[in-house]
Amino acid sequence: MPEAVPLAEDERLSYFSQGMITIALDTMGADFSPQNEVSGAVQVIKETGGGFHILLVGQKEKIEKELQKHSGFPKEAIEILDASEVITMGDEPVQALRQKRQSSIVVALEALKNNKADAFISAGNTGAVMSGATLELGRIPGVSRPMIGSQFPRSSGGFTIVFDVGATVDAKPHWMKEYGIMGSIYAKTIFGLENPSVALLSVGEEKTKGNELVLESAKLLEQTDLNFVGNVEGRDILNGKVDIILCDGFTGNILLKLAESFLPALRMRIKKYSEGGIVNKLKAAITASVLRSSLKDFDYQEYGGVPLLGVNGVVIIGHGSSSPRAFRTMLLRAEELVKKDLYGSVKNAMAKEQGKVTQ
Amino acid sequence: MPEAVPLAEDERLSYFSQGMITIALDTMGADFSPQNEVSGAVQVIKETGGGFHILLVGQKEKIEKELQKHSGFPKEAIEILDASEVITMGDEPVQALRQKRQSSIVVALEALKNNKADAFISAGNTGAVMSGATLELGRIPGVSRPMIGSQFPRSSGGFTIVFDVGATVDAKPHWMKEYGIMGSIYAKTIFGLENPSVALLSVGEEKTKGNELVLESAKLLEQTDLNFVGNVEGRDILNGKVDIILCDGFTGNILLKLAESFLPALRMRIKKYSEGGIVNKLKAAITASVLRSSLKDFDYQEYGGVPLLGVNGVVIIGHGSSSPRAFRTMLLRAEELVKKDLYGSVKNAMAKEQGKVTQ
Repeated sequence: MPEAVPLAEDERLSYFSQGMITIALDTMGADFSPQNEVSGAVQVIKETGGGFHILLVGQKEKIEKELQKHSGFPKEAIEILDASEVITMGDEPVQALRQKRQSSIVVALEALKNNKADAFISAGNTGAVMSGATLELGRIPGVSRPMIGSQFPRSSGGFTIVFDVGATVDAKPHWMKEYGIMGSIYAKTIFGLENPSVALLSVGEEKTKGNELVLESAKLLEQTDLNFVGNVEGRDILNGKVDIILCDGFTGNILLKLAESFLPALRMRIKKYSEGGIVNKLKAAITASVLRSSLKDFDYQEYGGVPLLGVNGVVIIGHGSSSPRAFRTMLLRAEELVKKDLYGSVKNAMAKEQGKVTQ
Repeated sequence: MPEAVPLAEDERLSYFSQGMITIALDTMGADFSPQNEVSGAVQVIKETGGGFHILLVGQKEKIEKELQKHSGFPKEAIEILDASEVITMGDEPVQALRQKRQSSIVVALEALKNNKADAFISAGNTGAVMSGATLELGRIPGVSRPMIGSQFPRSSGGFTIVFDVGATVDAKPHWMKEYGIMGSIYAKTIFGLENPSVALLSVGEEKTKGNELVLESAKLLEQTDLNFVGNVEGRDILNGKVDIILCDGFTGNILLKLAESFLPALRMRIKKYSEGGIVNKLKAAITASVLRSSLKDFDYQEYGGVPLLGVNGVVIIGHGSSSPRAFRTMLLRAEELVKKDLYGSVKNAMAKEQGKVTQ
């Protein structure tokens, strides 16, 4: 890892253009830590020929021991940032952040804050990562609440992105407007969509259908420059009617977890079917292979984690159960977010919106 | 159909014991009306050998024309109740109920109210059916809001029942408590569960996780005699961790529509796969047959409609796109609800709860 060059605040996210991109990867606190994290990191370094640096953050000896299992990759591409403490899944987020200042989450976020890393990935305690990022990095001016976006596969291919899938349990109409602005920038910057369509998730398509939050949010979204198209329903997430769907974090989190449970449920059913004799076993094997190929994008391990938008920095949150493959995907995704300067774009959009509001 | 015997109020739902059960089926306003309704009705009459009466409610000539396509069933088992007007899917519910007094929904509900039918099934305008049932039949004493329950298939078999899936967009803690009481009675009466487990849908299992509604509802549910077990997450709907899951109607409606869109999405993917050549076509056909057999319960046409609980009467709401098979299932379900006296059980439970509250 090159010496971190001290940069002026406004140059911060263009750090990558001056050298290698550095991604801080939390290697503690997830279900298979640090095994899967290290394995994913090595995998991506091999694939990209050391195209970027990875900072493995966590208990040094444990990481070193895990690294020794791997070989055949450029050693200088991976460095260890020692963090003696671990925030566990059961820890109360804010309390843990206050008490465990030497935890991998706090140490990594400080590295990000001090320009020693361009992005941060963690599959640890989600609440601690979100609160930590908000507290350590601060919110982008004009952002009331950070949000998490998740890609839902469409039946006809491609993705619908849903914001917020759980950063904040409640929501207010003006937060929803901000979600729409940040979400549109995300779709433009990362997916290259010119004028992404934005809708509110509701119980009916008609303008009059919805709870108070939806009805009030619609009024605010109509006043923006966004390509706001009104309401969509639960079925439209997979139908792919619009590019971006907005909802409160409570609804979004439940949706996300339901959607993610679909593939495991399907697999369990096919497994059960396969137990019905030799013919069933054969047919089940064929079914499994067809589904593997046609439902690849329903497997969240494929797209790894979800970005936390609205904080001063690039942060990706992964599942506690993330596989090496999921960490690989998250690392590549983080590199992409940094390269495409998502952070700068969101910051600009929010500044523009603030200018409008204060005028 | 036998002459409706005027019964005293408290005897009303035991009408079936005095003769044939009569179910009023709305044959107007759904996507394939009256074709699928009539076809489903004839099918069930044939299967049960005229085990109960069906009152087809709607425009007489249209129903008669449709009935002429069928034969070989006991004619006396099906009667027509003429209703000249139609409430369409696009109609504003409350306005339509007020203006179209001769609509099938209003006429059928009046038949139910006047003991000329034991249950009402409609796949028409959901809002109009819900509002109509609440206005015409009234709420059971102690019920703040009627609710709709839907069965979600579990990965390991069986069902999880979620209340409310969209009767009311918002919810208050004491409504959620009532949902829990009515839901438990439903699970006991219909599924024979001795002590059904009840949970709140939230963003985490811990007691501290959730929005204000969840946190406040938990306090009230803890004070009941229900087998309340705390919070579950979105993934637990298919995982089948508990028997009954409670949520506000906004979240529930979105969940339901997302869950119902899984199977069509899956089918679309398999269809696409099948277009990749002759081998793919063969493998896709095998896959489709395996899924047909192992995901039968993911197809909402199989379980038909959802019961509206909390009003004075047995009401089942179906999908606008209901197939003849779905109407068949709903008719059998309605008969079961009447036979097992779900209405009386809910009424008793609410009276018991009211007694407690006023003590």
